[in-house]
Amino acid sequence: MKLKEIGEFGFIRRVSRGCLVRPERVLRSIGDDAAAFRPGPNEIGLVTTDLLVERVHFLRNATTGFNLGYKSLAVNLSDIAAMGGIAREAFVSIAIPEDCPVEFLEDVYRGMRSLAARHDVNILGGDTTGSKVDLVINVAVYGSVEETRMLCRNTARAGDVVLVTGNLGDSRAGCHLIINDLPVEDDDRKHLFKAHILPEPHLEEGRFLAESGSVHAAIDVSDGLSSDLGHILTESGVGAFLDGAAIPVSGELRRFCESQGEDPVRYALAGGEDYVLIATAAPDHADDLSHRFEKYFQRPLTPIGKITSGDSFCVRFPDGREEIVKPAGWDHFKQ
Amino acid sequence: MKLKEIGEFGFIRRVSRGCLVRPERVLRSIGDDAAAFRPGPNEIGLVTTDLLVERVHFLRNATTGFNLGYKSLAVNLSDIAAMGGIAREAFVSIAIPEDCPVEFLEDVYRGMRSLAARHDVNILGGDTTGSKVDLVINVAVYGSVEETRMLCRNTARAGDVVLVTGNLGDSRAGCHLIINDLPVEDDDRKHLFKAHILPEPHLEEGRFLAESGSVHAAIDVSDGLSSDLGHILTESGVGAFLDGAAIPVSGELRRFCESQGEDPVRYALAGGEDYVLIATAAPDHADDLSHRFEKYFQRPLTPIGKITSGDSFCVRFPDGREEIVKPAGWDHFKQ
Repeated sequence: MKLKEIGEFGFIRRVSRGCLVRPERVLRSIGDDAAAFRPGPNEIGLVTTDLLVERVHFLRNATTGFNLGYKSLAVNLSDIAAMGGIAREAFVSIAIPEDCPVEFLEDVYRGMRSLAARHDVNILGGDTTGSKVDLVINVAVYGSVEETRMLCRNTARAGDVVLVTGNLGDSRAGCHLIINDLPVEDDDRKHLFKAHILPEPHLEEGRFLAESGSVHAAIDVSDGLSSDLGHILTESGVGAFLDGAAIPVSGELRRFCESQGEDPVRYALAGGEDYVLIATAAPDHADDLSHRFEKYFQRPLTPIGKITSGDSFCVRFPDGREEIVKPAGWDHFKQ
Repeated sequence: MKLKEIGEFGFIRRVSRGCLVRPERVLRSIGDDAAAFRPGPNEIGLVTTDLLVERVHFLRNATTGFNLGYKSLAVNLSDIAAMGGIAREAFVSIAIPEDCPVEFLEDVYRGMRSLAARHDVNILGGDTTGSKVDLVINVAVYGSVEETRMLCRNTARAGDVVLVTGNLGDSRAGCHLIINDLPVEDDDRKHLFKAHILPEPHLEEGRFLAESGSVHAAIDVSDGLSSDLGHILTESGVGAFLDGAAIPVSGELRRFCESQGEDPVRYALAGGEDYVLIATAAPDHADDLSHRFEKYFQRPLTPIGKITSGDSFCVRFPDGREEIVKPAGWDHFKQ
């Protein structure tokens, strides 16, 4: 089916089905100038978003619509998780080329809605426009958090324990498989592939950390452990000392690294798109926090090092060598 | 200056200067996973936005950065105005190609900030990413409005007077000048050009209408008077009868239409990007509303027709002929 057969409003009607999972807090969604919803009692929040595009494009052949939609929402939810927030409403701007089949686009929204529904997030609106060649998607998410519970990047303190909510490096390995067009047949590779394609935003984990009252700072791992912890260090004016042997890596990643002649610790440090959370917690509460986390999630909240005074960021590798980490970060313009 | 000389974070530092005009309601802005701000007492709102792009592009040579930035925010503020809302926070996603000079980009943000500051809007964050060829901008705006004052599209009532907050058609004429590469030298053409390039969002006018308590429905004119009033009619399940002679058009547009052999009423009806507001008001309050509006803004709030029961949308032209309007709307996929 071609888009021009159903038109813009026909398309919007098709993709807007199932977008409201919590209609009770919504006054106006798709079909008005802005979305209107209740961020709290006696209060209405509005969000509108517009996409300005001349000619856009995407590697449509290298992904399914579902995976593209899922991930474009997941990365935003992960940002809300990193603030300790509750994700509430999502806004999707999309610029669509004439030759893009409706089926692919419906799959994009199916991917988004599947993730949104699991986290009680409404897709409330956005903008739909044309594009000369390529597909562009912009997702905006509105969330809320209590002032006293909000987790920031700039509030780590010397002495804090550095904790992570899940394994690191799997997504990078999955990305390697895709880029090099390697077969994804055995269970190990399927696991790594999925970690990259369908990352799980740690919203519940973020709320748990925020509600604990023991966490000082947090961030989600989008650019990689070293880069993202680096942001906390820079913003908080502190350093860190990590125990490389403690960094949690999956069995799948260990076996992948062995086959590739890679060191799993270095691989995990320089990974990216893991979308687990890094948190720093007061040292006298970190053990208790980890115990309660593991009891609740049936997965560890793993201590991997300490926040230090000063500004050095150092890792001790399993062989005993210590190295200074350059938290270069992913720079879209320099790389 | 090339972007790679200053890098992503250097760029963000440069463009984030002057973005906070109301810092007292902001907890976290650029530099955290999401922006955090107070939508009301004891409440924190978060918004995050992400731009996914493969290869994007823009007619960079046909605009200044300032005008591009200004308009990309203006169209969003106009949506908030159409809800009777107060615009609060803006979020800018931008995908930047390597060859785009920093000066152009700074000019984009200068255009946005200039408009944002005039309307007490913070630019709170967004996303910065690279692009293969073309420039893409997505702006999201958060606003607020009291539940009892919100103006929607679906609440027009038969008998309402249809009012507009400004002249129609100027922007379309300005667009015609640009597309046909016509000289913009005399004052008339400068006026039409400016109406298209630097439209003024009617935020204050929208608040005035919302606070009046007399307005039932409203929308901003982005696609054109006939299309946008058409949205109100469709959503409200009503019709309309417009008096073509009453539709406000500027002297500049009248002279332009004369030189082009165009009928100014038809031109205004089919215009677009005017960003004035259409409102429908209870008939026994419309006169008083217009009087108070004119006293406050020193410009008329012009009655141009009536909402009718049924679903026909009819215009009486100055020569006495009556025609049914097809509120086709701008469809990005069908046209």
